[in-house]
This record gives sequence, C-alpha cells and structure tokens, in this order.
Amino acid sequence: MIAALPLNCRFPIKVPSLRIATALVSVLLAAGWGQADEGIWLYNNPPRALLREKYGFELTEPWLEHLQLSSVRMGGASAEFVSEEGLVLSNHHVGSRSLQRLSTREHNYLHDGFYARTRAEEKQCPGLEINVLVNTEDVTARVNAAVKPDMSDEAAFQARRAVMAAIEKESLDQTGLRSEVVTLYQGGQYHLYRFKKYTDVRLVFAPEEQMAFYGGDPDNFEYPRFDLDICLFRAYENGQPARVTHYLKWSASGPAENELVFVSGHPGRTDRLRTAAELDYLRDVEYPRTLQRLKRQEVLLSAYSARSEENGRRARNDLFGVRNSRKARDGGLAGLLDSRLMGRIKESENQLRAAVATNASLAALQGAWDRIAQAQKIIAEHTMDYELLERGAGFNSSLFNFGRELLRAAEERPKPDGERLEEFRESARASFEFGLFAEQPVYPDLETLKLADSLTALADGLGYNHPLAQKILDGKSPRQRASEAVRGSKLASAAIRRQLYQGGRQAVSQAGDSMIELARLVDADARAVRKMIEPQREAIRQAHAQLGKARYVIEGASHYPDATSTLRLAFGTVKGYEEDGRQIPFETTFAGLYHRAAEQKYRPPFDLPERWVTNRKKLNPATPFNFVCTADIIGGNSGSPVVNRKGEFVGIIFDGNIQSLVAEFIYTEEQARAVSVHSSAIIEALQKVYEARPLADELLGKGRSK
Amino acid sequence: MIAALPLNCRFPIKVPSLRIATALVSVLLAAGWGQADEGIWLYNNPPRALLREKYGFELTEPWLEHLQLSSVRMGGASAEFVSEEGLVLSNHHVGSRSLQRLSTREHNYLHDGFYARTRAEEKQCPGLEINVLVNTEDVTARVNAAVKPDMSDEAAFQARRAVMAAIEKESLDQTGLRSEVVTLYQGGQYHLYRFKKYTDVRLVFAPEEQMAFYGGDPDNFEYPRFDLDICLFRAYENGQPARVTHYLKWSASGPAENELVFVSGHPGRTDRLRTAAELDYLRDVEYPRTLQRLKRQEVLLSAYSARSEENGRRARNDLFGVRNSRKARDGGLAGLLDSRLMGRIKESENQLRAAVATNASLAALQGAWDRIAQAQKIIAEHTMDYELLERGAGFNSSLFNFGRELLRAAEERPKPDGERLEEFRESARASFEFGLFAEQPVYPDLETLKLADSLTALADGLGYNHPLAQKILDGKSPRQRASEAVRGSKLASAAIRRQLYQGGRQAVSQAGDSMIELARLVDADARAVRKMIEPQREAIRQAHAQLGKARYVIEGASHYPDATSTLRLAFGTVKGYEEDGRQIPFETTFAGLYHRAAEQKYRPPFDLPERWVTNRKKLNPATPFNFVCTADIIGGNSGSPVVNRKGEFVGIIFDGNIQSLVAEFIYTEEQARAVSVHSSAIIEALQKVYEARPLADELLGKGRSK
Repeated sequence: MIAALPLNCRFPIKVPSLRIATALVSVLLAAGWGQADEGIWLYNNPPRALLREKYGFELTEPWLEHLQLSSVRMGGASAEFVSEEGLVLSNHHVGSRSLQRLSTREHNYLHDGFYARTRAEEKQCPGLEINVLVNTEDVTARVNAAVKPDMSDEAAFQARRAVMAAIEKESLDQTGLRSEVVTLYQGGQYHLYRFKKYTDVRLVFAPEEQMAFYGGDPDNFEYPRFDLDICLFRAYENGQPARVTHYLKWSASGPAENELVFVSGHPGRTDRLRTAAELDYLRDVEYPRTLQRLKRQEVLLSAYSARSEENGRRARNDLFGVRNSRKARDGGLAGLLDSRLMGRIKESENQLRAAVATNASLAALQGAWDRIAQAQKIIAEHTMDYELLERGAGFNSSLFNFGRELLRAAEERPKPDGERLEEFRESARASFEFGLFAEQPVYPDLETLKLADSLTALADGLGYNHPLAQKILDGKSPRQRASEAVRGSKLASAAIRRQLYQGGRQAVSQAGDSMIELARLVDADARAVRKMIEPQREAIRQAHAQLGKARYVIEGASHYPDATSTLRLAFGTVKGYEEDGRQIPFETTFAGLYHRAAEQKYRPPFDLPERWVTNRKKLNPATPFNFVCTADIIGGNSGSPVVNRKGEFVGIIFDGNIQSLVAEFIYTEEQARAVSVHSSAIIEALQKVYEARPLADELLGKGRSK
Repeated sequence: MIAALPLNCRFPIKVPSLRIATALVSVLLAAGWGQADEGIWLYNNPPRALLREKYGFELTEPWLEHLQLSSVRMGGASAEFVSEEGLVLSNHHVGSRSLQRLSTREHNYLHDGFYARTRAEEKQCPGLEINVLVNTEDVTARVNAAVKPDMSDEAAFQARRAVMAAIEKESLDQTGLRSEVVTLYQGGQYHLYRFKKYTDVRLVFAPEEQMAFYGGDPDNFEYPRFDLDICLFRAYENGQPARVTHYLKWSASGPAENELVFVSGHPGRTDRLRTAAELDYLRDVEYPRTLQRLKRQEVLLSAYSARSEENGRRARNDLFGVRNSRKARDGGLAGLLDSRLMGRIKESENQLRAAVATNASLAALQGAWDRIAQAQKIIAEHTMDYELLERGAGFNSSLFNFGRELLRAAEERPKPDGERLEEFRESARASFEFGLFAEQPVYPDLETLKLADSLTALADGLGYNHPLAQKILDGKSPRQRASEAVRGSKLASAAIRRQLYQGGRQAVSQAGDSMIELARLVDADARAVRKMIEPQREAIRQAHAQLGKARYVIEGASHYPDATSTLRLAFGTVKGYEEDGRQIPFETTFAGLYHRAAEQKYRPPFDLPERWVTNRKKLNPATPFNFVCTADIIGGNSGSPVVNRKGEFVGIIFDGNIQSLVAEFIYTEEQARAVSVHSSAIIEALQKVYEARPLADELLGKGRSK
C-alpha cells in the first residue's frame, strides 16, 4: 500500500535524479532518459516534448486543466471526482480511517463494507476534508527577498517561515481559498497553491476490507494481485451534493496492453538528490531505528489484536499502517545496503562534484556537500531524542497527542503568526481545529498498552537513569504510569477538548488533566530538540537548493522537482515484466482471484467474503481485475486515477510492486510497476456482487443514482 | 510456554533469594518464608522440615528415589516415565521439534497430531535423546583444589574447566554413564551428575498442535487455559521398549483444591542473587537488545508464514519459540522497570552489604560487588559483538551453524581435552555428533531469508563500514550474500556433514563449502570476543560464590541453589487466585473449552480440531482440563510431572501465568501460578477423542497397549 498516511507513508530517501545520472554517466543506463517513463511532473511544466517524441501524444491545456480539476487531495493521499454530483473515488486504505471512525461495536463498516442506497444514508465522515488544487502562483522572488545574505541558517529559516505565513494569510483573506506555500526543487522555487476545500464529505460505498486488501499483509507490495481497493465518497456543499464541472468520464473497457496512460496524484516525498552523507545516515541510523520502532509496534499490536475480535477491530488501522510501513522500509533498507546500486548513485555524485569543481561560475556551490554532511552529523546526534520526545515514539497515544495540541495551542496562539510552530500558523488553523474537535473513539486499553510500550522505549532510548526519564516515569513502571495517565485524562471527549481549547492558557493550565500535564513535563525538552533539528534540516534544504542550481547549470534543461505531496502528472505504459525467468502478465482477472483463494485453501487472509462466494456465478470470470503500468509513483499516489489519452478513467492506483520500493533511490523500468484496480472490475463488482447498480450507473454517466 | 528450548527459554535474571530478603528485611513480606511454597530444591537437600511443619508431610528416601528415577531430562526441558514399558510423557511444545522433523509435505504431524496404533508404527525421532539422573557425587573439593590462590580469573577458569573435563571423562570411562559436573550455589559446590541415556526414542502420540497450544500466542502465559499440551514417546533399548522399574502411577482423579502437590523437573535458570549492577545491565542492555532481536525475528517469520500454508509449517517451530520468548522477556523487562520491586531487591542487597561490612570474618568478601560491577561493565562493552558474532544473532541459519561446527570440530578435536571450547570436550562428544549427524529438513528459502535478515542486523550492529562487516558482505547486499551462501553449501545433507566431520581438518578446509567459508571468515573475531566475555562471566560466577558464602554465614541455614537445568523438587498447593477483583478458579473443564471457542467465534487460534467437534458428545463436559498450583517453577520445568503425596501423577506442567514471569526476580505466591494439564483430561481425551484406549489403558496400568 502506498498511501501517504501519517506514519507509514513517507519514503524519505533522496537520490540523484536519473536525468543527472544519464547526462553524466550515460554508460550506466541501457536506455537513454529520453526513452524512460520517468518523472512526477508539475502541471505547469509537463513533459510535452517527451510525450510527443515517445508516444506521439500532444498535451493540451484543456486536457491538463480538466485532469487537474478532477484530481483531489485526501489526507496525505489522492482521489478523483468521478461524477457531476460530487462522487469522489479513492482507495479503501485511504478511506479506512473514516470507516473505522464510523464503525461501532454493532456496525463494523471497515470489515463488512458499506453501501448507502439513498442519499439520506450517506454518512458524514468526521475529520475528513478534501481539497482541489484550483491555481498556483510563483512566489519565489518574494520568499527569497525575505532572506538577507548575512542571516544565520536559523534566522533564514525563521524569516522564510514568516514570509510564507504572511503570503498564505493574505491569500486566504483575499480569496477565501485554503492557501499553502509549497517548496519545490529543494527550495529552488516556492509556489503558492490555492485549494477549494470540501469539509462535508460523506461515505457512499466501501467493499469489505477483506476484498479491498485481499491477501492482506502477505500480498502487500506483491504482484499479481486481486484487490478491490476502492472507496466512494460524496462531497457536499450547503447540505447538498456538490455539483462539479470537472470529473473523470469512465472507460468501461479500461486500458489495453502497451497503452499509454497517465497518473494524476499527490506523490508524498521523493528526494532523488540525496548525497552520500545522507544515504549513509539513512542506512546507518534512520532506517534501522525506524524499523526497530515499527517492528516493536507490529508485535505489540498483533499480539493485542489476536486476543479477541473486538481488539482486532480497534487496532486494525494502526496495525495496517505499521505493517505497510515496515514492509516498505525493509525494502528501502535492502536498497541502501545494495552496494551496486549505491555505488552507481555515489559515482554520479562524484561526477557532479567534479563538474562543479571545473565550472568557475559554480565555485560558490562547492561547499554544499560539506554543509549537508555537517548538518547530517548534528541531526544524527539528536535524532533519537527528537523521535522520542517530539515525534511521538516515546508517547504513542492519541490522548497524549490531544494533550500536547491543547498545551501548545494555548502557548502558540498568542504569539505573532510568523513566530509560531508551523502547525499553529493561521493558515493551518481551520484544519487543525477540524482535527482536534472531530469525534473519534479512544480505547483506554489500547491507549494504555501503546503508551506503556512507548514509555518503555523511551526509558531504553534516553536511558532509565536519565533525569527526564525519571521525571516522566515518576517512580512508577511504564505500565503503571501509562495506566494512570489514561485514567486521569478526559481528553477522549471532543466536547472537553473544544472547551479547553477555547478557554486558552488559563483553562488548559487549570484543567488538571493528566495527559496535558504529561505533555507539559516533556515540552521544554521536546521543543529544545526540535529547535536543534529544524535549522539543520533547513540548512540541508538550502544546500540542496544550491545543488539543484548546479544541476540546472550543468544539465541545461528543465526537469521535474522531487515529490512534496503536491499534485503531479506521471505517465507510463501498461505492461507486464519478467521475474525469476517467468513472465508476469500485465493484468489479472476475477477467475485468478478464485484460483488464488482455492490454492490457499481459503485460509485468512485468502478467504473470500460471503458475497463473493454467493455471487460468483453472476460474475464474468474474464473481467480484468488489477493491472500494472510503468508510471513513476510513490507513497501518496494511493487513490490516483489512471487515465487514457482521452482523459478517461481506466483504473485507480493502490500499490507498487516490491521491485518498485527501490524507486525511492532511482527510477527503474525493468520490473518496477504501479498496481491499479481496473475500471471494469469496479463496475462489474458494483453490479453483480454489491447490488449497487445505481452507483455503477452514476459512474458510467447513466444518470443519477437514487 | 516455559520449556527451556535453545533460544527461548533461558530466563537469566538473578535476584536475591527471598530467604535473604526474609532474614534481613522481614518487614517486606506479609508471610514469613516458613509459610511460602518457595524453592527449587536439590534431591539431596530437600525441604523436609518445611513440608513437615506446613503440610505434615514426611519425605522419605524411597519416595524421593522413586520420583527422581521416574523423572527424565528431555532437551532443555522435562519429562517422566509413565509406564513400565518405557512410555515417556512430556509437553507437545517440548516434542514439537521432533514432530516437525518427522513431518513432510504429505504428513504434518505437528499440525495434525500422531498416534501409533502398534509398536511398529512408533517413529524414531532423529536427534532426540533423553537422560535419567542416576546418582550424584560432591566433587567440590577436587574442583577447588585445581584452582591456585594466585591464579588470574582466566587461568582459574581454564583450570576449573580442565579438571571438570577430566572428572567427566574419568566417570564416563568408569561407568559408561553420561557424566556432567554441574555448578551449584554460584560455584559454592560442584557435583558430578551421572545419567542413564536413551538415544532411541520413538514418537507414540501427539494431539493436534491446535489443541496442544489452544489459544495460541494470545493465550500463552495466560490463565484460565484449555490446552492438551502433551506428547508421548517411548524409550527403546536394543530395538525393544525399555523396561523401567521406576515410573509414575497414574491418578485418574487428579488433584483436589488445596491439595499439596510436588513438581519434579529441570528448571533452566534462576539467578536470584543478581546485584544492582547486574539488574541495571539487564534492564538497560540485555533485555532491550534481546527484545529487539526477537521482535525483528517475529515480524520476519510471521510475514513469511503468512504467505502460504507450507511456509507456515516450515517456520512454525522457530516462530513458536520466538513468540514465546518475546512474551516472557517483555514480562521480565516490565519487572525490571518496576522500581517498587527493584527497590525491594536493592534494599535487601544493601542490607546484606551492611551485614558483611560489620562481620570481620567476611571482610575478604566485601570486594565481590565491585568485581561484579567491573566485569559487568566489560561485558556490556562487548556484548553486542558477542551476540552478533558468536551467539548467532548475525548468522541466523542452520547451515551456518553446521558450517561452524565442522570448522571448529576440525580445529578443536586435536587439542588436549581441557583446552578445547566447552562444547568440544570428550564428555559432550556423543551428543554433539548425534546432533550433527541427525537428518533434519533444511529449507533454502527460509535459510536465505533468516540469514539475509541477520546479516542486515550484523551490518547495523557492527556498522556497515566496519572492516569485518565489509569482509562478510563482500560487496554484496545481505540478500545476495545470503542467497549465495545458501546455494553454495551442501551441508543440508547429513551424509556430507558426517563425511566432512570424519575427514577432519583437511577435508573441511578442502570442502569449498560456502557456509564453512563464511564461518571461517568470522571465526577469529568470534573466538576473540568469546575469549573476552567468558572470563568475565567466570569472574561474576566466582564473586557470586563469595556472596553465596557470605549469605550462608549470615543466614546460618541451608537453602536451595539457583536453577541450573539440573533436577529439582518443588512443591505447592493447588489453588486459584484473585485478579482485578475477580476470583480465578483453580481448574478449567472441557465445557469451558467449548465455551471459549464459541465466544471467540471459532476464529484461529480459537477454532477446534475436527476430532474435538465430532467427538464432543462423547466427552464428559465436567472433566477437569487444566489447573494451577503455587509451586516455584521456571523455564525448563515444561513437561514436569505434578504428583500427589502418594507420588502419583496428577498432572503435567506446561506454562506459568503472566504473573509468574516476575518469579525471575522474586518468588511471589499471591498470583503467580504454574499451569498444568490435568491427569483426567489426558485419559478422557485419549479414550473419547483420539480412539486411543490401549494407550489410556497403558497409562492407567491396565496392561500393555498393543
């Protein structure tokens, strides 16, 4: 699964773009870059020439605009409008948090699926908002002007943050649109993005999780696959379904083999210009440590889930995210430990360094690599404290997060906007409050378990005798401390959170809430380590901006910026690949699903939901189910539409195969593939399995669903 | 599960004996030691007075001798003779390695169970031997005489090892009995143990693993329980069933509530005199690091197992052990992080130190604590390398283990006996060769996966750029290196192992086997770190011997030595306990099993084997199934018989509840319980579920089974 969900979907590995590698070390590649389906392109700088040359396809402005305005950002992932009445399609695993929040002991929509036969039955999703990118504006000059040449890294960081906040605030005031300044080309450019926001989003349809995630963790990141990983929502405005001008027309036939397709979505993060120092840090520090945390959580949540069905329901979303992330990181670390691949990347870095050294106009940029190495060293020294104290590894608890949000909001709100911690800027206020006030279940047993385990990790990481660890544990065992903190908190109630938030500093300090007090205990240290790390990260960003500049001078041509969760256009060919001497076909079918289930003797997670057993005869077994293409995708592309030359919807991205995990470092076309649900499968399943013909008709544009 | 299997069942936590705590800090205990059911007693120094006073029970020599000679050591765990024709009863989880080795793609005895209806169908278990303790002899004086006062710790260690090897060799030559010098009272005493050995052991009966381990990992270490955790073997001599004089008579009715019972078995390891320095080391270094390794392996094996049924079968034994050990360690770490409990232990240490300081005759012993702290510090510095290089954490592969055994055997065998690494002493030769030559399946895919993962851990632990890591990886990724090493080895063949072993140094060095060569690459470093660690451990053992002496002087009474996998006698009362305000009854029934299955909706691991569904009506639902008692047990007691005053078999130990995990540190009687299968349940199940009446008759002493 490749959704960019909170914990599990950042793939923060940067490697030099293949274009550099091509330009500098063409011998390393069998095919020149001109032939590769590489790139996550900006809508305002798409690969027109490449598409024309390789595929004879002419990108037009109306085509692009239509696809852009049909594309939707949902959480850290992607979605798309698929009907004029505001129907929004994404992946089940993107919608799963909403499905879980709507579920109760009586109705487990995550497990059993959901279908609203009437508009009245469509269920509003607490805390879910979606955004459509309406327009963008280059504000690079204004951001850069705020930074004076003699500023320290930290002062530059503060100045840039302040001007970005001001630009966002102005834009919001002027347009009423959600406004964000995004950083592109490692700080080479800053663009203002304006979004139309929908905050009333209702659940329309979801299959059983079993079918959405058929094969479960064992088949995750594998191919061939048989997953109906979809979820349908409807955007509402003023209590009515939103009328949208731009939505994707449905292709009932889907893509053919070797057909050109496009992917529009929000790739979360690539960093394809990482230096050797950064790669070493990732290999030696970040990946091993993150994997330790993930494996620890996976074991904890698996054991808890196994004790009863209800436990399984409560922990499902957490466990899902942790497993997904663990598998992705294991794959990434395997790449970092592949000296052949890393050798290629470092070789191209050396060649870029050599080219910079011989170009007088780039003399000033030569120090960039050393500055990165220096900053990376400081980060390495503090990263464990940062993860434990500030990033939640020591306090894995929703209640703790609420406590910290309330504590910090009370402290940050009175400050001038530009001086606040990023998440408390005015421009983020609405979304912050939306999240804080959303009703969501909090399970005391699971909270206690997670907090006790993460306090144990904290005692290990800081050292048990560290004064802060002693202060936090307060003479108790992690289990006792966690139990007390959970029992002493009222923050599970959204009403109480709202009341404390609105009461400001005084209300928060007088609340006597154990989680707020726990957050307070650690807050000075957490802020201090954050203040240590953030300027170093900014220094790295700035050095990368310089490397980007050098790259531009040497390369002399336009290229795509690294992914930053902003809307991008990718393209590729629908085709299979060879693996261990076998040819893996480009698509699977419903017949293949039933074959896999039988071969695995229907044991979970290879068993079939009841509906798929009873309605088997009705289905056309030859219906294509999943397919693969060569498009350049990454975590966050989950839910992205795949469209054909006519801009019609032919499928929805939901995963990458295991070979694509190396795409964090370098795009390869040999075996790496994006995996999608086929448009035909969605229609066939809605009609024959779920008795949801009106919904299928709406997708096919055959008039309103009831 | 509490078996002392290779990786998962050592519980190396030492805490001061409660007797010390009682003598010194009586206020800490509600009941005096005189009332507690504490102790894992030597057969030659049993708690006669205590049993007489508390229970009015008189231990007699014949009673003791009969129980001793009926008790069996099986692997690192326990078993017992239960018929005159050599029937041996232990736990299913003790026999699981044999069950797995006998299984094939066609016959999965681990999963489906096994029953030999005739003697001819009884299956010989490769590599399985059992031992019965025949007699013991105090050799303390001779061992101590070999150590001169001016020897360094390492020289003392070598001298002691040499004399122990010589004693063992002499005894073996003289008696033909397997002979081992065991260390008791932290080196305060050395006893020579002689065993009658049976190497032809055949499988007679096993239930389905599902029933043996009902509730699986979720219910492991929990109570109430519903597990038929038994496995029956038969010892053979000269191709015929062994005729044994001492075996346990069966009690068909089992134990009553509040009845006095005894447990005879092989508790693996307690160290109830750990110093503060040692506890800190365990809390800060050993436990967290071991848990990291276990959780890493658990995730790896779980993911592999989930991909197919066959994978699950292949990895089952490894996964079982890892999960069991992880849960036990998590429980242990929770205890180490409980400052209230640790405070009690440290307080009693302080009082012992104070008592030693004021006793002129003990002046020489005062330095013991500092010597332990010093040795512990050195161990802490080298322990990661030791685990990675010498203890298998960096080379998790059976093929690698074979490779190392062959390499080292070729190097060690030519040396004088006393100078060899311990496992190559003459006294251990037969068992070593038995293990090396035993046929057992090796799965290349699982070997590759485990080795790749552990090489990744090695690169992380040593540091990727460490010369040794670079030498081992040889320019390849862990996955590639592992794959090459597995493909380039022929050591999966027992015949080839035998041939190379018998060929000695020349054959081994010319074999060109990739696993032998991998072992060779790392051997100098592995030996070096072992040589660094072992004398420190010996120094700690010696310091503990001094602390033991001090304790004896101050206490002035006899006590039981820490567990060291030697035969011990424990005792206790059959009774329930209170938990979260609820009373947990002392026994469960078959009716309870069916209730639990229904309540969990029969989802794995709470589903029932077919036989238990179809034969439900035949079973008496009121039959007691599992029960608990207060006896002092620890890992290695798995399979121990529970007997009543008459010495009759009333049950078999298979687990401790979660509260008993703290028994590593301190014996507590409030909630900690040993969990057993009831003797009635075994008979009822054999008769009604498994159609094994002849076997039930043999157990009940009703004449021969067919």
